Amino acid sequence: MSETMKQIVLASRPDGAPKPENFRLEEHPVPQPADGEVVVRVHYLSLDPYMRGRMDDAKSYAANIPVDGKMEGGSVGEIIASKAKGFEVGEFVMGGFGWATHAVASAQGLAKVDPDAAPITYSLGVLGMPGLTGWYGLTELGKPKEGETLVVAAATGPVGSMVGQIAKSKGLRTVGIAGGAAKCKMAVEHFGFDACIDHHAYDTAAELRAAIKEAAPKGIDIYFENVGGKVLEAVMPLMNQFGRIPICGMIAWYNEGGLGANAKEQGITAPKLWRTILVNFLSVNGFIISNHWNRMPDFQKEVGPMIADGSVKVQEDITEGLENAPEAFIKLLTGGNIGKAIVKVI
Amino acid sequence: MSETMKQIVLASRPDGAPKPENFRLEEHPVPQPADGEVVVRVHYLSLDPYMRGRMDDAKSYAANIPVDGKMEGGSVGEIIASKAKGFEVGEFVMGGFGWATHAVASAQGLAKVDPDAAPITYSLGVLGMPGLTGWYGLTELGKPKEGETLVVAAATGPVGSMVGQIAKSKGLRTVGIAGGAAKCKMAVEHFGFDACIDHHAYDTAAELRAAIKEAAPKGIDIYFENVGGKVLEAVMPLMNQFGRIPICGMIAWYNEGGLGANAKEQGITAPKLWRTILVNFLSVNGFIISNHWNRMPDFQKEVGPMIADGSVKVQEDITEGLENAPEAFIKLLTGGNIGKAIVKVI
Repeated sequence: MSETMKQIVLASRPDGAPKPENFRLEEHPVPQPADGEVVVRVHYLSLDPYMRGRMDDAKSYAANIPVDGKMEGGSVGEIIASKAKGFEVGEFVMGGFGWATHAVASAQGLAKVDPDAAPITYSLGVLGMPGLTGWYGLTELGKPKEGETLVVAAATGPVGSMVGQIAKSKGLRTVGIAGGAAKCKMAVEHFGFDACIDHHAYDTAAELRAAIKEAAPKGIDIYFENVGGKVLEAVMPLMNQFGRIPICGMIAWYNEGGLGANAKEQGITAPKLWRTILVNFLSVNGFIISNHWNRMPDFQKEVGPMIADGSVKVQEDITEGLENAPEAFIKLLTGGNIGKAIVKVI
Repeated sequence: MSETMKQIVLASRPDGAPKPENFRLEEHPVPQPADGEVVVRVHYLSLDPYMRGRMDDAKSYAANIPVDGKMEGGSVGEIIASKAKGFEVGEFVMGGFGWATHAVASAQGLAKVDPDAAPITYSLGVLGMPGLTGWYGLTELGKPKEGETLVVAAATGPVGSMVGQIAKSKGLRTVGIAGGAAKCKMAVEHFGFDACIDHHAYDTAAELRAAIKEAAPKGIDIYFENVGGKVLEAVMPLMNQFGRIPICGMIAWYNEGGLGANAKEQGITAPKLWRTILVNFLSVNGFIISNHWNRMPDFQKEVGPMIADGSVKVQEDITEGLENAPEAFIKLLTGGNIGKAIVKVI
C-alpha cells in the first residue's frame, strides 16, 4: 500500500462562521493496520451540525478537535486491509473515520453495513446517527400522543424529517419549519408534514410566532429543539401545559462561539425561558445520541420497514469529492443543503 | 352570626416589590353557608412566594387576583357553621380561604385536619403544600441516588428544608444556600445539611459559584430550583452530566414583573442556559404541586413518621394578627423570615 490518502484538518479555529481557510487538505501515506485494526477506504462522509462545536475550544460534551487535527466525522467505506478477526477485506463498515479518504480503525468502533439491504449512504442518515437522533428524541423524550401537535425546525434535514414522519405515523399534527419555499414544499409534499413555515419569510420572532400559531391552532405539545435562536423565541409562548422539549442541538447559535454560549439573546432571556418551563410544567431534556447507541437495533427494526414501504422518505444532498467537504459544511451551517448532507469521497 | 370578619384585598398591583399600600384591610359581615357549604373561622394563614405571581396581571399557571379581590392563600381553621354533610361544627379543615378571618367554602375543597395528630400549623407547611412540593419534586423529578450531590436554595424555608432532609435520608450530600449566617447555621445544625453557603457573603455569581464548588467537590447532580437569579447562574456550570433540575419557583425574580419574565439577565443568557442543558444532558422539569395533590397520602405516610421520630425537623415563623400579613409577606419575599411563614389569625 504505497498509495497516498487525503484528509482535511482543522487549520485554525473559526471566529464565527467557518471559512475555507479554517480547513486544510493534506496528503499522507495510507496507514497499515496493527493487530485488531482494519484500514478502510471511505466511500461516503457524513456532514453534521455537531461538527461546528468540535471546532471551538469551549468545553462541550465531546473533546474538541485540536488545531492541525483531522476533522471528525462518521463515514462508511470498504475494508481494504484487515488484521481484525471477523472483519474481511471487501466488507462495508461505518465508523468515525473523519474527513479522509482512508482511515485505520480499531475493530471495536466499527459497525458492519450490508450494501445489499439499503444504499450504504442510509447508514449515515435515515438509518444512522441522525435518524436515530430524531427517533430516540421524539419517542423517548418527546413522548408523542395521538392528537397532539409537534413542531420541528430543519424539517427537511435528516433529524427533522425523521421526527416529522415518525410523529405523523403516531397520529400527531406535524408542523415543520424550514428556510425557503422550496424546502417547505418538500417538507409537506415529500415528507408529509401537515404544514411548513418558511422562517426566511418572517423578520421577527413575533411574526414567525403568528405563522406557527396559525399552523398549530391547538398549541404545541412537543417542540423538538435542534436550532435555538429565533425559532425557539417564537415557539416558547405557544407551548401547551405539560409540553416536552427534547434538545439535540441549537444550530442557529453554533456560529456564535462556544457552541452558542456567547450568542446574543435575540429577544428571549433566561428568566423568560425558565419561567415558561415553570408555568407550563414543561419537561426539557438535553441529549446526545452517542449515549443511546444501544437503541440502534430497536430503531432500525421499526424504521427499516417504513423506509422499505415508502412511509418514511429519504432525501440526500451529496457533494462530490473530499476537497469540497469544507464548502459543503459551510453551506450546511447556513441551511444551503436540502436533505442529509453527504460527501462522496471515492 | 352578626359578627364582622376581616379580610385583606389587593388594593393595587405592585410595581416591583410589593408595598403596604398594595394591600387593604376590609371589614364585612361574616357570611352564611349555603347548602353544601361551611363557614370557617381561620386560625392560621400560610404565606408563600407563589402569591407574588398572583398579584401581577401576566399570564401564569393560575388566575391572577383581580384588583380589589381577596388575597389568596391556604389556611387552616375551625368550622363554625355547616350545611355540608360530613362536616361538623368544631372540626378543623384546611382550604384556600384567603387572607381572611372567616371564609365560606364548598365542602369539595376542604381537607380535614386532626388537631390531635400534629399541630394544625403543620398542615400548612411541613405536612402540607410546601412539604409536598419539596418531597414530590425531589423524589419524582430529582430522582435522587445515594452518593449524589444536591443543591437547594432557601434551605431553611419549608420547601428547601424538606428537600434537604429527604435527600440526606436517601444518602445524598446536601448543600444548602441561604441568606445570612444565622440561616446557614440553622440549615446545618437544625436541618442537617452537610454544608450551607450564605449567598449574602458573595457579591457575584462567580464568587458564589466558587463557594458552592468547594462544598460540592463532585459537582451537582440535582439542583432543586426555587430561586433563579444569581444562584441559578452560579449553579449551572457546576451541573454534572445527566443532572436533574426540578423547578418549582424562582423567587429571586418574582419582584421583577410577570413572575420574573421581565427580570434582567444577571449574567446568564438564554443560549447559555439552553446549551448547558444540551451538553450536560440535563432534565429540567417545571411543576406546580396542585397538579399532584393525589400524592399527599404517600407523602404524609412517608414523612409523618419522620417528623414524629425527629428525623425531619420543623421550623415555623409565626406572625400575630391578620393585619400584619402584608408586612410578613413583604419580608418573606426578601428572605426576612426564618422557617415556614405563617400568620396567626385568631
